[in-house]
Amino acid sequence: MSDSPGFPDSPDLQERAAALDSADGLAKHRELFALDDEGVYLDGNSLGALPRHVPGRMADVITRQWGEMRIRSWDESGWWTAPERIGDRIAPLVGAAAGQVVAGDSTSVNVFKAVVGAVRLAPESRDEVLVDASTFPTDGYIAESAARMTGRRVVPVAPADLAAALGPRTAVALVNHVDYRTGRLQDLPGLTAAAHAAGALTVWDLCHSAGALPVGLDAHGVDFAVGCTYKYLNGGPGAPAYLYVAARHQAAFDSPLPGWHSHVDPFGMTPGYAPADGAARGRVGTPDILSMLALEAALDVWEGVAVEDVREKSLALTDFFLECVDRYVPEGLVTSVTPVPHHERGSQVSLRCEGGAEGADAGEVMRELVARGVVGDFRRPDVLRFGFTPLYVGFADAERAARVLGRVLRRTTGADLGEAQA
Amino acid sequence: MSDSPGFPDSPDLQERAAALDSADGLAKHRELFALDDEGVYLDGNSLGALPRHVPGRMADVITRQWGEMRIRSWDESGWWTAPERIGDRIAPLVGAAAGQVVAGDSTSVNVFKAVVGAVRLAPESRDEVLVDASTFPTDGYIAESAARMTGRRVVPVAPADLAAALGPRTAVALVNHVDYRTGRLQDLPGLTAAAHAAGALTVWDLCHSAGALPVGLDAHGVDFAVGCTYKYLNGGPGAPAYLYVAARHQAAFDSPLPGWHSHVDPFGMTPGYAPADGAARGRVGTPDILSMLALEAALDVWEGVAVEDVREKSLALTDFFLECVDRYVPEGLVTSVTPVPHHERGSQVSLRCEGGAEGADAGEVMRELVARGVVGDFRRPDVLRFGFTPLYVGFADAERAARVLGRVLRRTTGADLGEAQA
Repeated sequence: MSDSPGFPDSPDLQERAAALDSADGLAKHRELFALDDEGVYLDGNSLGALPRHVPGRMADVITRQWGEMRIRSWDESGWWTAPERIGDRIAPLVGAAAGQVVAGDSTSVNVFKAVVGAVRLAPESRDEVLVDASTFPTDGYIAESAARMTGRRVVPVAPADLAAALGPRTAVALVNHVDYRTGRLQDLPGLTAAAHAAGALTVWDLCHSAGALPVGLDAHGVDFAVGCTYKYLNGGPGAPAYLYVAARHQAAFDSPLPGWHSHVDPFGMTPGYAPADGAARGRVGTPDILSMLALEAALDVWEGVAVEDVREKSLALTDFFLECVDRYVPEGLVTSVTPVPHHERGSQVSLRCEGGAEGADAGEVMRELVARGVVGDFRRPDVLRFGFTPLYVGFADAERAARVLGRVLRRTTGADLGEAQA
Repeated sequence: MSDSPGFPDSPDLQERAAALDSADGLAKHRELFALDDEGVYLDGNSLGALPRHVPGRMADVITRQWGEMRIRSWDESGWWTAPERIGDRIAPLVGAAAGQVVAGDSTSVNVFKAVVGAVRLAPESRDEVLVDASTFPTDGYIAESAARMTGRRVVPVAPADLAAALGPRTAVALVNHVDYRTGRLQDLPGLTAAAHAAGALTVWDLCHSAGALPVGLDAHGVDFAVGCTYKYLNGGPGAPAYLYVAARHQAAFDSPLPGWHSHVDPFGMTPGYAPADGAARGRVGTPDILSMLALEAALDVWEGVAVEDVREKSLALTDFFLECVDRYVPEGLVTSVTPVPHHERGSQVSLRCEGGAEGADAGEVMRELVARGVVGDFRRPDVLRFGFTPLYVGFADAERAARVLGRVLRRTTGADLGEAQA
C-alpha cells in the first residue's frame, strides 16, 4: 500500500524477498531471538537482539549460582575459568584455534593491552604506531595513550594509504576490520602481509566484522586482535570484549595491565608478579560475571552455523537492500557510502543524506523510521546506518526497510509532491 | 548439643547472642537477602549475598530493556548515564559528595587509572610510588606497571612504616584501607594528612572497607580512591568497580585510558580526544550494562541505612565472635591476626592455624566448616577468614560459627581427645 503514486510498492521486490527468504538456510535461526514481526531491527551492528534462552539462563545464574551457591560458584559454576572458556567459544568465529582468545574488559581496554603489547615486541627504533584515520574514535584515543606511555607516536593514515605508510619506523598498525561509519571492509590479509613484510605487527579491531563474516585470524597470521561481543555476537549491552594474542606472541606478551587474574598463581597472592601462560595472560581483574555468562549463553545460537554461510547471506541481504533503496528512494536524496564490491563490504549499509541544508536531516529521518518500526541508527552529521545480522534479518525485512525509507524521505524532503506531479 | 565434653556449648553465649540480635536495629535487613537459616555465610567480604529483589529487576533489564527496547535503552532506560548515576549511589557510602565517583571496569583497571592519574599530578622529581607491602597483590602489580609506564618506581613499604617513608620523592602512596588478609584497618585520615604534608597524593583501595565502615573520603581530603562492589556492597559476582577522583583534581585528571565514553562529546566521534568534565572522565569503554544494573538494584538495600550503624554492629559482631572463639577453641590452635583495637579493625576476623605441620591445615579446616554450613574462606598458607556483613549477619551466626570451628579444630587436631581426658 504505497502512499505515493510516484513510487508505488514494488510487488516484484516483495515476491523476490519472499522467494529469497524461503530459500534461506539460516532463516530458521530467527526463531532463536526475541523478535516480533511488527518491526525491522537493523541495528544489530550496534546492539544485537536478545536470544530467547538468555533470560532463563540468567535467572539460574543469578538465583542459583549467585543466590544459593554464592562464593562456591567461583569454582563449582566455572566462574573463574569463564574468560578463557568463552574466549574459546569466540575463537572459531574469528578463525582462531583454541587458547588464543580471552573474554573480558571493554574493547577500549583491550586496545590498550594489544597496542602496548605489540609495541613492546618491536625494537625502540620502530617508534610509530599507525592508526587508520577513519577508525572508531576510541581506538585512536587509546592508541595515542599507548604510544605516549611507551615512548612512541601515533601516525594517523587513511586506510587506502596504510600499506604505503608501513616502513622501518612502524612498530604496529592498528586497523578496524570494518569501518563503523561506512561499512567498508579493509583488506586484512593484504595489510597484515604488508605489515609483516615491513617488519611491523598488526592489531585488528573486529567489532564490526566478528559474527558477520569470516575473519581468519590464524590463517592470515594476524598478531593481535580485539573486538566487542554486543553487536553481531548478540552478547548483550556492553558485553565483555575479547583479546586475541597469536600463540607465537604469547610467551613474550607483556601486558600493561598485569592484574592478579593474569598471574600464574593468582591465589598464591605473592607480591611479585609472574604472568600466566596462554590466553589468561590477557586477563586483568575480576570479570563481570553476570555480563560474561549472558554472553556465554548468547553464543549458543552459533551452534551448527558456518560463518561462511552467514557471509553469503549478509552479502545477499545488503545487495538486495541496495537494490530496493534504488527502487524506492527518489534519486539524489541518499548516496550509499558503503562500497559496492563484495570484498570491500561488511554487513551494514550506510546511506548519506544528500542536499546539505536543503536535503533531509539524517537524525530526523532516523527518528521517523524508528517511529515506523524500522530501527537503524544515525551517525553525525548525515549518515543513516542499517546493520544486517544474517541470523535474524531476512529479505522481507530489507525490502520493507527500503520501502519505508523511501516514504519517509519523500515526505521529509517534499520529493513526494514533486514526483507525484511529474 | 556439644560433641565434646571438654568444650560444651555455652548456653550463656547463645543467650547473649539472642539478646544482641533482639536489640539489633539492623537485624530486619537480613530479610532483604536471599539467605536461609540453614547456614552461616561469613564470606560477604569476598562475595556479598544476593538481595532478593535483584532477580526480578534483572529479568526486566534483560527481557524488556534489552529484549524489547533494544538499542533505545541506551537513552530511554538510562544505560548511558548508569556509570555516573551508580557512582552517585556509592558516593554517600564512602563519604563523597555527588559527582566524584564513577562505576565501571575492574578494581585493577581503576588502580591503573588512579595511580597514573595521581603520578601525572606530581612533578617529575617525585619519582616514587609507595605501595603498602601487605596490599592485595593486584594493587602492587598494577602500581608497578603504572610506575614503569610513567618513569617512576614502586617502593613497597610495610604499612606501619608508610608515614615515615613519605618524602620529597614521593609522588603517590597507594594503600589498602583494610588489609584483605588480616582485616587490619589502616589510618586513612592520618596517612592522608601525612602524605599531603609531604607534598604527595594518596590512592586508597576501599575494597574491604566500603559498605562496612565510614570512609570519609571528602572529610579526610583523599585524592583518589578505588574499590570493588561485590563484597560488602553486594553488587554481584565481579560487579563493576568504581573510581573516586576528588573534585579538586578532576580538571587536571589525565587518564591513561581515555576511551570514547570519557570524551566530552562521545557521539561527535571526532578523531581528537577532549575529555569530559567531572566523574565521567574516569570512564573508558562501553560498560557491562547487565552487571552494572544488577549493582544498581543491589544498592537499594542501603535505603535508610547509616554507615555509622553498620560500623557499630560490625565491631560488636567481631568482638563477640572473637570472644566465642576464645571460649570454643582450645588454646593454641588458632591465633587472631586481626587487631583487637577497634580503630585498627575492619569487618573481618582472620585466624591463623597454629602448630605448623603438626597443627590444623587451614584449607582442610575451611572445607570442614563449609561442609557444616559455615562458609568463610581460606588464604594460603594458614589463614581462615570470616567476614561479617552487618546487613545480614547476626550474633547467633557468630556464635554458631565459632562453636562449629571449635568442633572442627578439636577433631582435626585431636585436641578433642586430649581435652576430654584432661
